[in-house]
Amino acid sequence: MKFLAICGSLRKKSTNMGLLRYAQTHAPEGVEFTIADISNIPFYNADITEKPAAVLALIEQIAAADALVFGCPEYNYSVAPALKNALDWASRELGNAALKGKPAAIMGAGGGMGTSRAQYHLRQICVYLDLHPLNQPEVFANAFSASFDADSNLIDNKIQENIVSQLVALANWTKQLQK
Amino acid sequence: MKFLAICGSLRKKSTNMGLLRYAQTHAPEGVEFTIADISNIPFYNADITEKPAAVLALIEQIAAADALVFGCPEYNYSVAPALKNALDWASRELGNAALKGKPAAIMGAGGGMGTSRAQYHLRQICVYLDLHPLNQPEVFANAFSASFDADSNLIDNKIQENIVSQLVALANWTKQLQK
Amino acid sequence: MKFLAICGSLRKKSTNMGLLRYAQTHAPEGVEFTIADISNIPFYNADITEKPAAVLALIEQIAAADALVFGCPEYNYSVAPALKNALDWASRELGNAALKGKPAAIMGAGGGMGTSRAQYHLRQICVYLDLHPLNQPEVFANAFSASFDADSNLIDNKIQENIVSQLVALANWTKQLQK
Amino acid sequence: MKFLAICGSLRKKSTNMGLLRYAQTHAPEGVEFTIADISNIPFYNADITEKPAAVLALIEQIAAADALVFGCPEYNYSVAPALKNALDWASRELGNAALKGKPAAIMGAGGGMGTSRAQYHLRQICVYLDLHPLNQPEVFANAFSASFDADSNLIDNKIQENIVSQLVALANWTKQLQK
Repeated sequence: MKFLAICGSLRKKSTNMGLLRYAQTHAPEGVEFTIADISNIPFYNADITEKPAAVLALIEQIAAADALVFGCPEYNYSVAPALKNALDWASRELGNAALKGKPAAIMGAGGGMGTSRAQYHLRQICVYLDLHPLNQPEVFANAFSASFDADSNLIDNKIQENIVSQLVALANWTKQLQK
Repeated sequence: MKFLAICGSLRKKSTNMGLLRYAQTHAPEGVEFTIADISNIPFYNADITEKPAAVLALIEQIAAADALVFGCPEYNYSVAPALKNALDWASRELGNAALKGKPAAIMGAGGGMGTSRAQYHLRQICVYLDLHPLNQPEVFANAFSASFDADSNLIDNKIQENIVSQLVALANWTKQLQK
Repeated sequence: MKFLAICGSLRKKSTNMGLLRYAQTHAPEGVEFTIADISNIPFYNADITEKPAAVLALIEQIAAADALVFGCPEYNYSVAPALKNALDWASRELGNAALKGKPAAIMGAGGGMGTSRAQYHLRQICVYLDLHPLNQPEVFANAFSASFDADSNLIDNKIQENIVSQLVALANWTKQLQK
Repeated sequence: MKFLAICGSLRKKSTNMGLLRYAQTHAPEGVEFTIADISNIPFYNADITEKPAAVLALIEQIAAADALVFGCPEYNYSVAPALKNALDWASRELGNAALKGKPAAIMGAGGGMGTSRAQYHLRQICVYLDLHPLNQPEVFANAFSASFDADSNLIDNKIQENIVSQLVALANWTKQLQK
C-alpha cells in the first residue's frame, strides 16, 4: 500500500514536515510512505498551457498512491497556499482522475488550535476533489511547545501515538474503500 | 479615499480582474481605485528572511489604502492561492499593522455559486487579519455565462449595478469605521 | 438496503420535504426509503436525563438504516436548528453508535445558492458524527422558482434527475463502505 | 450602553452561562448587561404565523441593545440549535431590523478547542444577519478543566481577563460603529 504525503510548509525546519517525517518512519507494516516535493511548483495560472515538470511529477505520484496524507499548516486561519496550489494543479489533469475517490488523512502543527481552522477548510476542498478524508482520529499539534526539538523533529509521545493511530486508521479506511 | 484591489487570479483574461476593472472605472466620486500587481510575489516561506520587493510594494500599497477590495476566484471550493499568499506575506509585516482594522469588500466570478464557497473562507481569513469585510451586498458572478465578453470585460447590467452598490457601501463603511 | 431521511424544515409545505418525497418515490430498486418524523423532538438539554420517546424512535430508525439522507434547508447561511438538534440528540446515545460510520447524502432547497452554505456546515458536523457524506453529486435546488408546485412537490426535471443520480450514488457508496 | 447576551446552552449548570454571568458582573462601567431567556422559544416554523411571546420579548430586547454577546457552545462541531433558532426567529421580524448593523462578541466554553469550530460557523451566520462580530480578542474556554467550579462559575484568571478585554473591545467597537 502506498501513501503519498504533501506538506504545505516550504521552510526547512517545518514542524508539519516534522509530523510527516515521523509518520514516514512509523507507517504501518506494508505501507510505502513517500513525501512529495512541491517546492518547485509555480502558482497555478490557466495561461500556462504546458504543465511544469514538478506538477507532472506530483500528478504521477498521486496517481500511483493508494492514499494521501496532508501536512496542513495554518496561515491566517486557513490553508497554506503551497498545499492548496499543489492540489489545484493536480485537479486539472484528466478531469481530476488522479485524486478522484482516494482516501486521505490530515495532520497539522500550528498554534494552540493545532491548525484545526485550516483543516476544516481543507476538508471542504476535499469535497470538490472527491477525496475521502478520514474523520477520526484528527491530529492537531501545537508547534510552539516542547513537542518538537530544535530541528522540528516530533518528540511528544502523545502526538506520536496519535499519528500512528491515524496511519493505521488510514490503512484500514483505504482497504475499506478499495474492496 | 483610497481603495486597493487585489485579484486572486493571475491569468491575463481573468474574469475576476474583469470585475475589478469595472469597479475601477465605476468607483464612487472621490475614490482613487488602484489594482495591485501580485504576479511577482513568491510563495511565503519563513526561511526567506528578507521580504521580496513585490511584497514590500504590496505592503506599502495596503498601508496607504483606506479599504481593500478582493477579486476572489474559487478553485476547488476555496480561495485562490495567489490571493491567500499575498495576504499571508502582508500579515507578517509589523505585526499585521498594514491590514489591521481596515474595511474590505469581496467580489468574485466563478461557477454557478459565484465563488461563494471561497468567499466564506476568505471571510474567516479576515478574522485573523483583523479586516472588516462588508456584509452586504455580496457580489457573486457566474463566469461561464454571457456576463463577460471575450476579453473578460463585465457586460452584465445586474452585476455591474451590484458592483456599484458594493463600492458605495464600502465607501460608507469606510467612513463609518474611520470616524 | 434502508435509507432514512431527515428533513430540517418543520413546515407543512416544506420544499425540502418536497425533495425527500420525490426521493422516496424514486429510490433505486431494493431501497426502502423512510422519512423520519422529528417534529416532536425538544431542544437538546443535558438536564433531560431520560431521552424523550421521539428521540428514542429516531435513534432506533438511524440504527436500522444503512444510509442517511438529509433534507437540508438554509436559514441565515447555516443549518436549520431542527435538523442539527435531531443529530445532536442522536449522537448522545451509546457513544454515537447509531450514526458512526454510516454513509449519507445531502440535498437542499433554498435561495439562489440552493442551501450550499448550510450544506458545507452540515458536512463539518458529519466529521464529528463520523458520517461519510457523498461528495458528488450535490443537490442544490432553488425553492423560489418554478421548480416546485403549490404543494411544494418537485416538478423540475433537472433536479429530479439530479436526485435520482444522487440516490444511485448513495446506494453504491453504501455498498462500497459495507463490503 | 446596553449589551444583550444570548446563551446557546439550556442546561442549568451551563459553562457558557458561566462565562456570561462573569461577563455580566464585570462589564465596563456604564454598560447595562442583560442575559436573555430563550428557554421558551419553540423551533422556528414558517407555519407559526403569530410570533410566540418569548420571541417577541427577545426581539424587543435585541432592538433595545447596542451590542450582542453570544455564549456559544459547540455541539458536534457546530452551533447549538437553541442559539441558532433564537437568531433565526429574530431575523424574521421587520426585515431583520432588530439585528441589522449591530456589533457583537462571541465567547464559548467547550472541548479542547473552546468551541472555535462553532464560533466560525456563527460568524458566517452573522454575515447574513448583518451583525459585526468583533475580530479580537476571541474567547475560547475549556469546559472540561479546572476553569469552572462545581456550579459552572468561571474561576480561571486568564479567561476572566480575556472576557474583560473582550467586553472593553466590544464597548469600543460599539462606539466606533455608532459614531
